[in-house]
Amino acid sequence: MKNSFVGFFDYASATPVDPVVSDYMAPYYSDKFFNPSALYSSEIKTDLENARRDVAAILGVKPREIVFTAGCTEANNIALQGVMDRFPEGKLLISAIEHDSVQGALERYNGAEIPVHPDGLIDINALRELVSDDVVLISIIYANNEIGTIQNLREISAVLDEERNNRGSGGLPLYLHTDAAQAANYCSIKARSLGVQLMSLNGGKIYGPKASGCLFVGNEVELSPLYFGGNQESGMRSGTENIPSILGFAKSLEISQADMRQEVSRLCELQSGLYRICESYGGVIVGSRKHRLPNNVNVRFDQVDNETLVMRLAEMGIQAAIGSACHAASGAKSHVLASIGLTDQEAQHCIRLTIGRYTTPESLSQLDRALRVILA
Amino acid sequence: MKNSFVGFFDYASATPVDPVVSDYMAPYYSDKFFNPSALYSSEIKTDLENARRDVAAILGVKPREIVFTAGCTEANNIALQGVMDRFPEGKLLISAIEHDSVQGALERYNGAEIPVHPDGLIDINALRELVSDDVVLISIIYANNEIGTIQNLREISAVLDEERNNRGSGGLPLYLHTDAAQAANYCSIKARSLGVQLMSLNGGKIYGPKASGCLFVGNEVELSPLYFGGNQESGMRSGTENIPSILGFAKSLEISQADMRQEVSRLCELQSGLYRICESYGGVIVGSRKHRLPNNVNVRFDQVDNETLVMRLAEMGIQAAIGSACHAASGAKSHVLASIGLTDQEAQHCIRLTIGRYTTPESLSQLDRALRVILA
Repeated sequence: MKNSFVGFFDYASATPVDPVVSDYMAPYYSDKFFNPSALYSSEIKTDLENARRDVAAILGVKPREIVFTAGCTEANNIALQGVMDRFPEGKLLISAIEHDSVQGALERYNGAEIPVHPDGLIDINALRELVSDDVVLISIIYANNEIGTIQNLREISAVLDEERNNRGSGGLPLYLHTDAAQAANYCSIKARSLGVQLMSLNGGKIYGPKASGCLFVGNEVELSPLYFGGNQESGMRSGTENIPSILGFAKSLEISQADMRQEVSRLCELQSGLYRICESYGGVIVGSRKHRLPNNVNVRFDQVDNETLVMRLAEMGIQAAIGSACHAASGAKSHVLASIGLTDQEAQHCIRLTIGRYTTPESLSQLDRALRVILA
Repeated sequence: MKNSFVGFFDYASATPVDPVVSDYMAPYYSDKFFNPSALYSSEIKTDLENARRDVAAILGVKPREIVFTAGCTEANNIALQGVMDRFPEGKLLISAIEHDSVQGALERYNGAEIPVHPDGLIDINALRELVSDDVVLISIIYANNEIGTIQNLREISAVLDEERNNRGSGGLPLYLHTDAAQAANYCSIKARSLGVQLMSLNGGKIYGPKASGCLFVGNEVELSPLYFGGNQESGMRSGTENIPSILGFAKSLEISQADMRQEVSRLCELQSGLYRICESYGGVIVGSRKHRLPNNVNVRFDQVDNETLVMRLAEMGIQAAIGSACHAASGAKSHVLASIGLTDQEAQHCIRLTIGRYTTPESLSQLDRALRVILA
């Protein structure tokens, strides 16, 4: 299998399901298909709660703080709509480089964007000024999906602690949510030690099944459910539990976190190689190099527009992206690249190369050969 | 595999995934895992659109009228919240025997319940009186999940046509939504000929993957999306498309509709056998016999409460339900049984036996033997 993925440079958009994970899921489609809410299916219910316990342990939180969802877009919506609908008088702050599922919420709710520096990091001073006493929720993407910038959530959380102290009792709560879809493979996701009260995870980006994931909801968080229904998942996500998908997600998270240290070091080396290859064709790396996912390279080649480059690479067996896949479909401009100061013209020359578990030195050689044909 | 399902009498709560379906899904976890929104993944995009076309053909509607969802609870929420949020001045009518995912909407939106007769059928005269000119959406479950009553949607739709004619232009629209989760195995789901503008389907009840399904949304229907995000599914369900699940759902619908006539006739015979067995132990059949799913028997045994009976049956290898699985978990009373006139006391003696693809005469013999031990 690995061999067919040698030219795949788009792990940020999708990851293949780990064979261990799909084998683990298989019996829950056939023999173990019972609805966990049924009176007789205590075994399945136990499997579900064990998965919840495992995920909670990885996040360093309590099992009842885990809400399994059908993907990260859903988790983000449950978090943002849930809190903002619960506190309609409150304001929402989001970073300028959020995923569409978070950014869209600003169209409905009262709030503002926190600007980022040209390297993609949150402008902490701007954050301080924006956190007025009516802000109830702040959502900041842990690692950006286009340029891979990793935010310092602990530093951000410390700013919010100051504001919480100023509010005293009787004021609005102030929650920090993070979309950790891209971070979960490569960063610590100990929610409490990061200082977040809400965190979204995505199985489809960590070698688990698509449309799986969870939302961590701290016990202290008050939010309204998005769905009417049978009140599964403590009332926060109604609908028959997708057992194979939930167990597959838990397993993929376990594997991904266990392999993290080794995989980060392997990918850092490949990332350096990628930087060198791109720069040898005049490519300019976009975003912070220091605070960056080890699997992300976003690079600007002024000699060719990104859509042409991605299509030509595809013809040569290399799958790359012009930005987030969600954006690609709509053809919209990247608000992320605009936020770090790129002009529309510059942004049209940026491609995203994201690597992962099946990327090898041979993958880089193949990319090198393709770029030579296209760009040299 | 079939053999292990011989004592399974709870097909309304969950169905095992058809092995043809799981084999069909398998390559989309591994080799064909691409994000369909990516520029290079035209093959996956084609597979997705072919699935949409196949589902649309089965429903007799246009492909762009199909929104794939993560299950039927989600589909119901997208339909009801979507229309009611779009027309906040409008009223919602639902039948008194809806699934929780529909019933819950009455807590938020202005509206009323349409009563049902003791056989579970909608009171058409009451419907006529309730359809005032501010009603924008009516939601009626096609086949009830507890007592299997099949509603005459065409008759209901004709009543709505009269009301639509009275409104003339400039008035509110009037949409009919149906939750067809339990109906899709055994009834025609040609949406246009049924006269519905919105219809929810559930893969997890038709031998497809859990948390799969779709919402048919007629072109003429205006509704607001529930989610912010990448605007997948024509903006109606953001989030990376769950390709294996969507293709599995489409395949399961195809198989289930192709086998329908034969399976209905086979199950009708088994259902008659079940009636006889239950009645031989003093059981009283609950709900209409005539307008009923061929796979549903809801029966009252006055000599034992339903929780005890279900637990004792489970000990003897028979899986049955006290009602909907969603309700079982919360321990709530059945609003369905109350609506058809059963007292709380009577309702506590009703169990639901639902049969399906792997039910055989041997299944009935096994149930007979178990009931003899418990009840005789």
